[in-house]
Amino acid sequence: MKALVYLGPQKKALQDMPKPVLAAPTDAIVKMTRTTICGTDLHILKGDVPSCTSGRILGHEGVGVVAEVGSAVTAFKPGDAVLISCVTACGKCVNCRRQMYSHCTTGGWILGNSIDGTQAEYVRIPHADMSLYAIPPGADEEALVMLSDILPSALECGVLNGRVQPGSSVAIIGCGPIGLAALLSAKFYSPAEIIAIDLDDGRLAVAKRFGATATVNSGDGHAAEAVMQLTAQRGVDTAIEAVGMPATFELCQQIVAAGGTIANIGVHGVKVDLHLEKLWDRNITITTRLVDTVSTPMLLKTLHSHQLDPKPLITHRFKLDQIIQAYETFAQAAQTHALKVLIEA
Amino acid sequence: MKALVYLGPQKKALQDMPKPVLAAPTDAIVKMTRTTICGTDLHILKGDVPSCTSGRILGHEGVGVVAEVGSAVTAFKPGDAVLISCVTACGKCVNCRRQMYSHCTTGGWILGNSIDGTQAEYVRIPHADMSLYAIPPGADEEALVMLSDILPSALECGVLNGRVQPGSSVAIIGCGPIGLAALLSAKFYSPAEIIAIDLDDGRLAVAKRFGATATVNSGDGHAAEAVMQLTAQRGVDTAIEAVGMPATFELCQQIVAAGGTIANIGVHGVKVDLHLEKLWDRNITITTRLVDTVSTPMLLKTLHSHQLDPKPLITHRFKLDQIIQAYETFAQAAQTHALKVLIEA
Amino acid sequence: MKALVYLGPQKKALQDMPKPVLAAPTDAIVKMTRTTICGTDLHILKGDVPSCTSGRILGHEGVGVVAEVGSAVTAFKPGDAVLISCVTACGKCVNCRRQMYSHCTTGGWILGNSIDGTQAEYVRIPHADMSLYAIPPGADEEALVMLSDILPSALECGVLNGRVQPGSSVAIIGCGPIGLAALLSAKFYSPAEIIAIDLDDGRLAVAKRFGATATVNSGDGHAAEAVMQLTAQRGVDTAIEAVGMPATFELCQQIVAAGGTIANIGVHGVKVDLHLEKLWDRNITITTRLVDTVSTPMLLKTLHSHQLDPKPLITHRFKLDQIIQAYETFAQAAQTHALKVLIEA
Amino acid sequence: MKALVYLGPQKKALQDMPKPVLAAPTDAIVKMTRTTICGTDLHILKGDVPSCTSGRILGHEGVGVVAEVGSAVTAFKPGDAVLISCVTACGKCVNCRRQMYSHCTTGGWILGNSIDGTQAEYVRIPHADMSLYAIPPGADEEALVMLSDILPSALECGVLNGRVQPGSSVAIIGCGPIGLAALLSAKFYSPAEIIAIDLDDGRLAVAKRFGATATVNSGDGHAAEAVMQLTAQRGVDTAIEAVGMPATFELCQQIVAAGGTIANIGVHGVKVDLHLEKLWDRNITITTRLVDTVSTPMLLKTLHSHQLDPKPLITHRFKLDQIIQAYETFAQAAQTHALKVLIEA
Repeated sequence: MKALVYLGPQKKALQDMPKPVLAAPTDAIVKMTRTTICGTDLHILKGDVPSCTSGRILGHEGVGVVAEVGSAVTAFKPGDAVLISCVTACGKCVNCRRQMYSHCTTGGWILGNSIDGTQAEYVRIPHADMSLYAIPPGADEEALVMLSDILPSALECGVLNGRVQPGSSVAIIGCGPIGLAALLSAKFYSPAEIIAIDLDDGRLAVAKRFGATATVNSGDGHAAEAVMQLTAQRGVDTAIEAVGMPATFELCQQIVAAGGTIANIGVHGVKVDLHLEKLWDRNITITTRLVDTVSTPMLLKTLHSHQLDPKPLITHRFKLDQIIQAYETFAQAAQTHALKVLIEA
Repeated sequence: MKALVYLGPQKKALQDMPKPVLAAPTDAIVKMTRTTICGTDLHILKGDVPSCTSGRILGHEGVGVVAEVGSAVTAFKPGDAVLISCVTACGKCVNCRRQMYSHCTTGGWILGNSIDGTQAEYVRIPHADMSLYAIPPGADEEALVMLSDILPSALECGVLNGRVQPGSSVAIIGCGPIGLAALLSAKFYSPAEIIAIDLDDGRLAVAKRFGATATVNSGDGHAAEAVMQLTAQRGVDTAIEAVGMPATFELCQQIVAAGGTIANIGVHGVKVDLHLEKLWDRNITITTRLVDTVSTPMLLKTLHSHQLDPKPLITHRFKLDQIIQAYETFAQAAQTHALKVLIEA
Repeated sequence: MKALVYLGPQKKALQDMPKPVLAAPTDAIVKMTRTTICGTDLHILKGDVPSCTSGRILGHEGVGVVAEVGSAVTAFKPGDAVLISCVTACGKCVNCRRQMYSHCTTGGWILGNSIDGTQAEYVRIPHADMSLYAIPPGADEEALVMLSDILPSALECGVLNGRVQPGSSVAIIGCGPIGLAALLSAKFYSPAEIIAIDLDDGRLAVAKRFGATATVNSGDGHAAEAVMQLTAQRGVDTAIEAVGMPATFELCQQIVAAGGTIANIGVHGVKVDLHLEKLWDRNITITTRLVDTVSTPMLLKTLHSHQLDPKPLITHRFKLDQIIQAYETFAQAAQTHALKVLIEA
Repeated sequence: MKALVYLGPQKKALQDMPKPVLAAPTDAIVKMTRTTICGTDLHILKGDVPSCTSGRILGHEGVGVVAEVGSAVTAFKPGDAVLISCVTACGKCVNCRRQMYSHCTTGGWILGNSIDGTQAEYVRIPHADMSLYAIPPGADEEALVMLSDILPSALECGVLNGRVQPGSSVAIIGCGPIGLAALLSAKFYSPAEIIAIDLDDGRLAVAKRFGATATVNSGDGHAAEAVMQLTAQRGVDTAIEAVGMPATFELCQQIVAAGGTIANIGVHGVKVDLHLEKLWDRNITITTRLVDTVSTPMLLKTLHSHQLDPKPLITHRFKLDQIIQAYETFAQAAQTHALKVLIEA
């Protein structure tokens, strides 16, 4: 079968690979119909993710049709349309029992990382009963691809950890796909203010269309002042970090109100400064999280009831044959204005 | 000054009454600009509220302008436009410290009950610093009147106690003003389904306009079956009781899903049956609450940011001189289709 | 093998029964070493539990050693010492995903109810990975038997649902085994007052030894007055109903403080009166729950760290051969002073 | 009257000062009977607290008797025995309404900081109704002094923010008075493990006596390894930082388990490193807080019911005349083994 294979730092290829086979009674084999590319895939290609080694099929998002199931799989059968969760969970280990699926002792984020992933014609899904979700007939499969990773990540790490509330004020630092997904899911809770912050006016314009009540271009180095002015010098109740850089985490510390929360989504490569000399008495909460995808059932319901419309996140569409071009489009977002690129098998 | 005075069961009159005076250093005198009539005022007129005795000026809602303040009032001064909370709170007693203002040891629901109320030209507000809220310049005063009682009651007793969540299912039993206010505030949390239930098709049509995803006329005695069908036999996550009768509380028990909540808002005059023989193992929560108005700051923010528009609750407008007619219009809602009637001083 | 078999209302016998066999790849067969009898077993014998039919092996508690496992069981192997949970959970259905294992769509309370139970030499445990717990070497197996049902039931339905807090006041209505287990687990949260209420002075004396700060014999019909006097007329923050009768639920309503919680553990056979005419404005929460056993990992830790000592709940010990006598001892608790009777295989 | 006055960095004196007078109708004047010295007082003396200027009477803890009250004080009258909260709260500002008294817009930590404090014969207490607590007859006044600051700080910033639970594991980094108070209040929630960490074996011995289940002397630079070994390489659910230095905050990051919390109590003078490159996917929560003293009513109940015994924190006793000697004893804790020093007026 065709698959996008990581070949070591900076190298990848669309190659012929053996079709996956069942390895455990709880496995399923899924024939992919649609997948996408994540910012994390670019991190892998930079060589930043040591757990992902050369020869690995990338990808941890997508929808498909069940081709085969192991003897212990009870919730799915061949022919079922399914959403694939980016996080694999056994459901029964010490961490799964506390709903921290991201740290499942035999799962977590392994797809397209320590095991082969979804940018292929077929993928093996361990712990299939917990890691797949039935797609109701007539559902919009393109929209569903956004529920594999980006929406639960934004909701869980940003909005839920950030305790967004009706009437509260939220700043979203970084308006790439994950920041925009945070914006979409923040609206579930009817905050009074959503301030979108980015260096790119194009992305800020998108944020405005998605429902931001104000936008701040941080290119002039005065974003903190702008946010304080927008909030009557109070700062924001929730600062969602959706970049993963020291400078953006610094900005969060400057704009969070007393009693507020900094909810980190960004993948950080280096340590940051934490200004406890200023924050020790400010009643601040800082959270980190790898998405647990515990919110997927909730997201499916909001999608079906039209509380959520993630389709505008999709800016480009490709066939699996064109996946190299899809990667380029996604990697050069500043030029292509790409948010999420959809890849049909 | 003119005031609407309760004169014993079934009797009321618009009378001349002495203008109130400051009685404690924490009091304020407010010149009323707008008030309204509550279902509870009708309960008082039926003689159902023993704490309210003949000679009492009714009313516990409204907006006005501060006329005078006691020496210990620091948050307000004459000339300030203010929203009056239906609940008076000292802020410092054992119950206020746990934010249960409804049970303030020197406050709670006393306005138009055990002390004179707001259906008058002036009203004395005890514990003014805690019981009034500043109105920002340019705010819509009519909309604000809905924040004295009906919106915080619906939000706190129905929606917050009922733990409405994104993607969840909600049934609202009773689509009078309080049920419709519950519907408006439930939408803060983006539930997937809001099923409105009433005997009156007119009110159900209003509920539909306000955002109900389905309506059920319970007149045929088959409302429970209808709700179960709408929810694939699962029942609803939250059943909000907004009537106050044994039959409607019974319906809530029939339609609540395992793990769900029955959030009572209705004022009950008699005991009800609780079917513990069916519910003991269903993981149900039942809540009661007299509004604490702790959510008023949140509601003000949602109003100012246009997350909330309570204006459609107002169906009729009168002058204080016409308040007897306003009471008739409100009491005969089945004929007049009245929801909230606004009274301008 | 020998097993205690339910033979229809009022009838039971210790019989020879076929040894259970694996029926699904997720099953385990456990050789029992210790079990016990639950009040629910007596309910079944009265004919009150229609899901339990003649020919069923009773029992849903105990510890044992794994004899055999299905092909999909990964957490256990033959020879492992295990605690059996009274609730069977698949871990992956809609209810298990929200940790409401009691309503698992293919599990819940089925042992000794709709499938054969633990009062036998061997038992088949479905969904073994989720429904068994490893016993560390050297653990006290007798104490562990108390963690199958009675401790998690008391903790989850009574103490956690009742929101017991440091400094709070708790009343426990009913000092049978489950009420006493509630007392033991309430102490995890350091309440200031634990008032034990029962008709039996002997049980009240046990409650006192277990840590009750006051006891009330409700035989004189003045228990409510006694509790109000003990709490300076405020009532209790948490009333735990551990009986399952209309009269005891009525008492809970009389003694719960404004803002307090009635946490029901009792199995009710008939409906009760709910005095909403008095409680609608008292900010009360009422909860029901079938134990989910989500707290079992927490309880195991408290047991191992000596925060919990459930051994004093065990008053009598029998061999499996003597189980008919064990039932008599347990059923006639007023005479025998039995709390939990332990049965060794 | 006599008072301990700050005279600029490194300088203080016991001086004659004017007796305070009522400045607002909500003030009370309290005649001190007992006070103590806080680590923060030493910070002030180092010149680290710019809001505290030369000429200020220090101290923010203590008990006394009300001497005089303003016209708007309703909860207290002359002659009442009272506990003084270290945090002054109006109860009605935007922050007090959300129970964040530490950030009261006209209060917070002002005693012995921006207004004169309690190390004197008399003190003026603003917002007296909210900032004083009645002492019941017969209460142990020495124990109560520990409830002004150290116990609520430890409980709120460390234990409640740290979400200590039955069966959980806790590390307390720093076993000075505040760390030991965290240890005492952590026990309210029955954690399975409390690991005390310090450089001083004497303090570790005290921690052991107070209930630590293990102690680690961090002097050898291998504290992290020791904690990981004690927790089977899992780390602790809650790491309480009770020192305020970069090295101790670093240690917290090394030992916190996935899904755990770092609850900061320490007063930090410089920024720290936050290792987001390691923690971004570990589902960590970090909290900071200036004590709000919202837990004071809870603490009073635990004290009266003997759930809490803070007396062992008091190691030395002085008269107000000897306060300079008391400061020396407290400042040289390594030599004197001082924890809290009590000063009688």
